[in-house]
Amino acid sequence: MLLERTTRVNFLYDFYHSLLTDKQRAYMQAYYLDDYSLGEIAEEHEVSRQAVYDNVKRTEAMLEQYEEKLKLFEKFQQRMEIIQQLEEQLQVMDKERITALLHTLKEYE
Amino acid sequence: MLLERTTRVNFLYDFYHSLLTDKQRAYMQAYYLDDYSLGEIAEEHEVSRQAVYDNVKRTEAMLEQYEEKLKLFEKFQQRMEIIQQLEEQLQVMDKERITALLHTLKEYE
Repeated sequence: MLLERTTRVNFLYDFYHSLLTDKQRAYMQAYYLDDYSLGEIAEEHEVSRQAVYDNVKRTEAMLEQYEEKLKLFEKFQQRMEIIQQLEEQLQVMDKERITALLHTLKEYE
Repeated sequence: MLLERTTRVNFLYDFYHSLLTDKQRAYMQAYYLDDYSLGEIAEEHEVSRQAVYDNVKRTEAMLEQYEEKLKLFEKFQQRMEIIQQLEEQLQVMDKERITALLHTLKEYE
């Protein structure tokens, strides 16, 4: 599994897990957060390895669809970038720049 | 229609409209944003007034369910409150307090 891909799925899961079913959450949690293999998860839930794989892949696609519609992860990253800039500007106490950054931050829902 | 209720639905619509169907969006837009009556919307779409009413009520319930799960409106209000506090602290340039508020702001997804 590529690390970057795993990180993204973890973030998307963090933002949208409340919209998933209990089973989807159980598989995703086991596979991505607790690092169990597909085979181990299949054994635990008494289903085929393929069934777990299909469920996980479908859930990943759902998470990407939610992100496409709501863009919570994207907006979160943008806000974090602005907050970082605010912290930098705070070091030099540039009041005008800080005010402008706060204004930008307010634009984000 | 109570003003407070309308404001809330408008906000929820703003946050979650991407998760609705085209028909749901059309009815909600007409009723809440463009202020048409249920009768006018029914005539325009050649359906019964009751059908429009049921659709709008179901959509409102869906928006509340999404808010219950994702809490985007609630988190938005909390962030806005912190940003307002930041702006106030910026007037007196209380660096320590500003840093603390930025830290709190980062906690929000």
